[in-house]
Amino acid sequence: MSLDGCVAGPSQSVDNPLGIGGMRLHEWAFALAIWRHQHELEGGEINESTRVVEESVSNIGATVMGRNMFGGHPGPWDPKKQWNGWWGTNPPFHHPVFVLTHHKRKPLVLEGGTTFTFVADGIEAALEQARRAAGGRDVSLAGGARAAQQYLAAGLVDEMEISLVPTLLGSGERLFDGVGDNLHGLELIRTVAAPQVVHLKFAKR
Amino acid sequence: MSLDGCVAGPSQSVDNPLGIGGMRLHEWAFALAIWRHQHELEGGEINESTRVVEESVSNIGATVMGRNMFGGHPGPWDPKKQWNGWWGTNPPFHHPVFVLTHHKRKPLVLEGGTTFTFVADGIEAALEQARRAAGGRDVSLAGGARAAQQYLAAGLVDEMEISLVPTLLGSGERLFDGVGDNLHGLELIRTVAAPQVVHLKFAKR
Repeated sequence: MSLDGCVAGPSQSVDNPLGIGGMRLHEWAFALAIWRHQHELEGGEINESTRVVEESVSNIGATVMGRNMFGGHPGPWDPKKQWNGWWGTNPPFHHPVFVLTHHKRKPLVLEGGTTFTFVADGIEAALEQARRAAGGRDVSLAGGARAAQQYLAAGLVDEMEISLVPTLLGSGERLFDGVGDNLHGLELIRTVAAPQVVHLKFAKR
Repeated sequence: MSLDGCVAGPSQSVDNPLGIGGMRLHEWAFALAIWRHQHELEGGEINESTRVVEESVSNIGATVMGRNMFGGHPGPWDPKKQWNGWWGTNPPFHHPVFVLTHHKRKPLVLEGGTTFTFVADGIEAALEQARRAAGGRDVSLAGGARAAQQYLAAGLVDEMEISLVPTLLGSGERLFDGVGDNLHGLELIRTVAAPQVVHLKFAKR
């Protein structure tokens, strides 16, 4: 998240999924050996962010994401466009992923253990399906902003990791827009200062 | 500043100058012995915030603030209302304070070395007067949001201390509204995690 509360810049598109300037929010991660390894790249740094990333991926059994994060075109799914996400044939999740959408679609089975299941009956149904698929492990809410806002406003988030990047985007998708003034018991439990980023972990006590 | 970027809550008024919920942004300070001592109160804590506050007040020779922070009624100054600021007859500044306003007013000399000078010819003139009054010491930009936005957008801020409070206000005065995506070279140089707050210090390198 930027200092002015944005998790993506303005003018998001298929060519620029993070919006103008949005890439700047992820540079701290791109520099890490652990991130590069997950994306089958070599090299990279080990620094204070490494254990934060390790911790955040260590016990995930399923992921929930919004339609906007899964990407592609708006409206009903068009089989001719064959939009299968941003991540190629072997996405870096390697577990079941549940995509919030208003439009039904058959599950999409990709390589490496990643299956995208499209859930058209609301955030609670998606969470319930993800919980069952995770089999006792954690469910990760990957984003984007609107999916996060809905789960936050409903009080359904048990832990939140904010990677605050000391930059301004000026406009774009604000993480907390429409969430109101209630964190539903989420309290700051850990702060890690790292190169280009400060990691703030929230949890319900 | 709140997690959603507000430095004051909604519905600011003479009765509630920080707006709804705005007081929550300052609880970490009210608990400190150093803050209580400045306001002639006894007791209080010493914790990680103490040195941040000590550092921020250690070398100040003059302060600039906006009309909204100085407070009182809108429009031209009404001598009958005798609005002399929020801080009583002996304000905690003890140095010259320059108030940005559209309406001229004679300087106001209070006890303990605090003089309020009203500057009606713009932010650069106010800064210039404050620099001269500070005699080589630092000029503090106290707030509020609109004054900070103007100096930030003009690239006139050399250091910025953000005390990030892990709470949401939902709406109110956003520190970075209208500032755009340019911090004019301000970089994060120090992070201090303290009870109820994370202090982020920015400076031009």
